[in-house]
Amino acid sequence: MLIDLDKLGKKLDEGRPIHGGNRQWAANIAGTAPENILDFSASINPLGIPKSAIAAIQSHLIDLSHYPDPRYTLFREAIGEFHDIDPEYVLAGNGVSELLTWVARDLSQLSATVIFTPSFTDYDRALAAFNCQVERFSLLSDNNFAVSPQLPQLTNTDHKGILINNPHNPTGYLFDCNSLLPYLDQFALVVIDEAFMDFLTVDQQQSLIDLVPLHSNLVILRSLTKFYSLPGLRIGYAIAHPQRLERWQTWRDPWCVNSLAAAVGIAIVQDRDFQQQTWNWLESAKSELFDGLSQFADLNPYPNAANYLLVKTEVDGSYLQSQLLQKHKILIRDCLSFTELGDRYFRVAVKLKSENQRLLEALSTLIPFK
Amino acid sequence: MLIDLDKLGKKLDEGRPIHGGNRQWAANIAGTAPENILDFSASINPLGIPKSAIAAIQSHLIDLSHYPDPRYTLFREAIGEFHDIDPEYVLAGNGVSELLTWVARDLSQLSATVIFTPSFTDYDRALAAFNCQVERFSLLSDNNFAVSPQLPQLTNTDHKGILINNPHNPTGYLFDCNSLLPYLDQFALVVIDEAFMDFLTVDQQQSLIDLVPLHSNLVILRSLTKFYSLPGLRIGYAIAHPQRLERWQTWRDPWCVNSLAAAVGIAIVQDRDFQQQTWNWLESAKSELFDGLSQFADLNPYPNAANYLLVKTEVDGSYLQSQLLQKHKILIRDCLSFTELGDRYFRVAVKLKSENQRLLEALSTLIPFK
Repeated sequence: MLIDLDKLGKKLDEGRPIHGGNRQWAANIAGTAPENILDFSASINPLGIPKSAIAAIQSHLIDLSHYPDPRYTLFREAIGEFHDIDPEYVLAGNGVSELLTWVARDLSQLSATVIFTPSFTDYDRALAAFNCQVERFSLLSDNNFAVSPQLPQLTNTDHKGILINNPHNPTGYLFDCNSLLPYLDQFALVVIDEAFMDFLTVDQQQSLIDLVPLHSNLVILRSLTKFYSLPGLRIGYAIAHPQRLERWQTWRDPWCVNSLAAAVGIAIVQDRDFQQQTWNWLESAKSELFDGLSQFADLNPYPNAANYLLVKTEVDGSYLQSQLLQKHKILIRDCLSFTELGDRYFRVAVKLKSENQRLLEALSTLIPFK
Repeated sequence: MLIDLDKLGKKLDEGRPIHGGNRQWAANIAGTAPENILDFSASINPLGIPKSAIAAIQSHLIDLSHYPDPRYTLFREAIGEFHDIDPEYVLAGNGVSELLTWVARDLSQLSATVIFTPSFTDYDRALAAFNCQVERFSLLSDNNFAVSPQLPQLTNTDHKGILINNPHNPTGYLFDCNSLLPYLDQFALVVIDEAFMDFLTVDQQQSLIDLVPLHSNLVILRSLTKFYSLPGLRIGYAIAHPQRLERWQTWRDPWCVNSLAAAVGIAIVQDRDFQQQTWNWLESAKSELFDGLSQFADLNPYPNAANYLLVKTEVDGSYLQSQLLQKHKILIRDCLSFTELGDRYFRVAVKLKSENQRLLEALSTLIPFK
């Protein structure tokens, strides 16, 4: 196949997504339908949608002809039980990104918001939407990431907020919860986005949820769509003091979570089998993929607490992306939209072992082994 | 059954909903499960969810494990075709209420926003969320509504916005589109919420959608959940100039409409059979319900262009509501949250003929005939 590289370059740049998981864009580049794309760009559990979720959808289809309960009482009770916290501290959200909108509005009342870069691209959207002053601190030193993260010492933070991703995306760092505790005294508002925390087994998790009742300046964000493979459904939640959550509720529309998402949320947090299967798969699949990527001369994956791998590459990340798409219908996440990373990095989700193998084989047609 | 009226009054007032369709609250009052409530408080098509919607959900369940296309390309194309308008003028929304949030943010940039009262309660939420200055003009004169609406003459409007519901909720007025045209020259921003417009047959509709390409200060909001009986799914859209819609998109989260809602939206706007069945049902059912309500000595329903009836009552509306709930498990919409209406009015949806009959029979146990 002859490829017009100028045309391809233009096509790649037109509407290049700033988030993973844009199969429509990838399908246009690869000249195929979205369902033919093997998507490593969105960090979604490849075990697929739990049966308990599908069962909940089927049994709640009838509810679609009624408005959702605007207090999402049953959902909040289920989440309260799951985390052993009073449901008054829980707010249902139309995915973490919807909750980030209102987090950012609270942050905009402070003198600045500290974030660690590179960071989840949607933080920039939310913070810019409310004209937040942003102070960025890099997790890189000497153009490399340390194997274990060093949290910067921050000063003059009394009137500032901080927004931290734990585990961190895209690096995969897991910040020890003890290392975060000083921030609770230092900052006016501490927001921890724990969207990937559930990929860690309960004894590995470093969540601050238990501390929320003691700290009115602490907000935790949780997703239910990555671990349970449901990003199309839109469901997440915030854990924070009731007064803050009530304020957000007066800003946003009363029925922002659809009825199916609320019903599914209740079912999946109780699905212990699916949770255990996921932890079992991830441990061995991640280790295999890490080893496979390490064999290539030009690639260096970083150790990762979550379900994706950040890979340093000597070959341009966007070149690899376009080649994998064109020749193998495989989509990886370029890092052009992450501050500081650019073309020297890409990110891949950990998928099923056979799918990870397909990625490794495709890469072997493009770059040499060590 | 003995009822402790003090206790009941307290129970009614605790968490009394400001919107229709809160079956959870009603079920608590009636001492039953939400599914046993016959709900006249939410103005939803009683023909139920179209088969085309259920089919779309079933065939798109598999999509839930992928992120929605953040541009909602296929949905916007379908809406564009439905209204014969360029899809660039269409923005998918998580229900009209989500879009109202961003409408209000635009309105907050103007010196004031004009609304006609009584008005949809969620306007107050959205306008207050962004501290909009609100100027209210009453549609009542001498404590009564005219049979045909008189739009007020408004002056000094250059730097103001106006937010109009057409057909109007709760009165059911239909403003002739010609009567709205002068506002396009007078106001900096004209927002028409046409959430109930599709209950009118195509030749009866008074939509301003066709004028959007000619007026960058015009925004139309449309719901797909009332006519298609899907308020639990959350889907609506805005029609406005692309520049405005792109700005809203930078404010809100990128995946605010769930994949099932987007797929269902595409299917239902093409479901001509369901549309015709709905128009057929509404014409005769509304006329029967209107006549039935008119027979009571204390009730005066107003003529209504949409699928609900506003009823003036000599008996307290909240008394009727509590009696209907307690004794008949029927929920009507009290008007306490509508400015100016209070206890002298209630609103009922037009439902299936047999359901409307149940309401009329229940009312006959409470109030005398003329």
